[in-house]
Amino acid sequence: MIKKEFSLEYAHRLLNHGCVVLVTSHFRGINNILTLSWQMPISSRPKLFALAISKKHFSNKLIRKSKELAINVPGRNLIKEVHLCGSYSGKKVNKFDKAKLSPIAANFITAPLIEECFANIECKVRNMYNLGDHMLFIVEALRVLVDPKWFDGNFLKLNDSGIETLHHLGKDLYMVSGAVIKAR
Amino acid sequence: MIKKEFSLEYAHRLLNHGCVVLVTSHFRGINNILTLSWQMPISSRPKLFALAISKKHFSNKLIRKSKELAINVPGRNLIKEVHLCGSYSGKKVNKFDKAKLSPIAANFITAPLIEECFANIECKVRNMYNLGDHMLFIVEALRVLVDPKWFDGNFLKLNDSGIETLHHLGKDLYMVSGAVIKAR
Repeated sequence: MIKKEFSLEYAHRLLNHGCVVLVTSHFRGINNILTLSWQMPISSRPKLFALAISKKHFSNKLIRKSKELAINVPGRNLIKEVHLCGSYSGKKVNKFDKAKLSPIAANFITAPLIEECFANIECKVRNMYNLGDHMLFIVEALRVLVDPKWFDGNFLKLNDSGIETLHHLGKDLYMVSGAVIKAR
Repeated sequence: MIKKEFSLEYAHRLLNHGCVVLVTSHFRGINNILTLSWQMPISSRPKLFALAISKKHFSNKLIRKSKELAINVPGRNLIKEVHLCGSYSGKKVNKFDKAKLSPIAANFITAPLIEECFANIECKVRNMYNLGDHMLFIVEALRVLVDPKWFDGNFLKLNDSGIETLHHLGKDLYMVSGAVIKAR
């Protein structure tokens, strides 16, 4: 997949519709992948995102230590990999190996990006809050890479030639992105 | 629409797949409705949600003062109302009147709920953070009302008899919820 740089200005459009993501992290030689639904844009300028990650998750520890992560956006074609990465702990399993996903080097962070995802966002942690049974990580996007065939200008081109995102409903149930409609 | 109480335990399943919501607020006799995509669950116990609301929005002021809000979840049938409530300011327009939506009384908050939405979550604000060009409101869910025909047990029953949610892609483009699939 040949990816191109995408304007940070429109980075929120990758996640605005609430799709599942794969969060990659790295600390002292250890890489991990976390399947996450609880992430969203929270500021346009600067371009901030929030991610709620369970205190029990191994990725929580890696991200607290390294203060960086990447948000990787999978298409429907990766449903098995997405569910697998949400079903094992990185404490016990190298999820890049187990899911046969390919790590590629980022520019601004040491955590790897996932080659097979149609978009990757490199992020640095700016704040962390302890809220209930999760930590809320506030991150700033530094660089976005996308597969241009998934976009029409700065908009996601969903449901055109098999371009679909995944949205988690709970347990092993996922919703696939549906038709695109205009409000007027 | 006859609604029933829904278990707080599963309240996150209303928003887990990233749909657009209508946030209602009230302060000193003034009601407002805000169309919002930047909201998500962030803790299971207690049941917390985060909402990023632009500092420019009138609802931001009402919620900062009243420290309460309701999250109302619209179906696709309300696309015109959803887009209208995202296109006007409550400073100038009574959006309940303009969108012809019906306010109904909540139990734990003074802000009204929206009758026409298939689910309503009454919330109290627990924390507020000033982050970039938005405020991040951390709220605790106190009560959930749903139209039971939208659910199969504690799961959203999407794409069964016209049951569809809306997901904002940007400007006047929305994605409708698509097929539900199992990961294995």
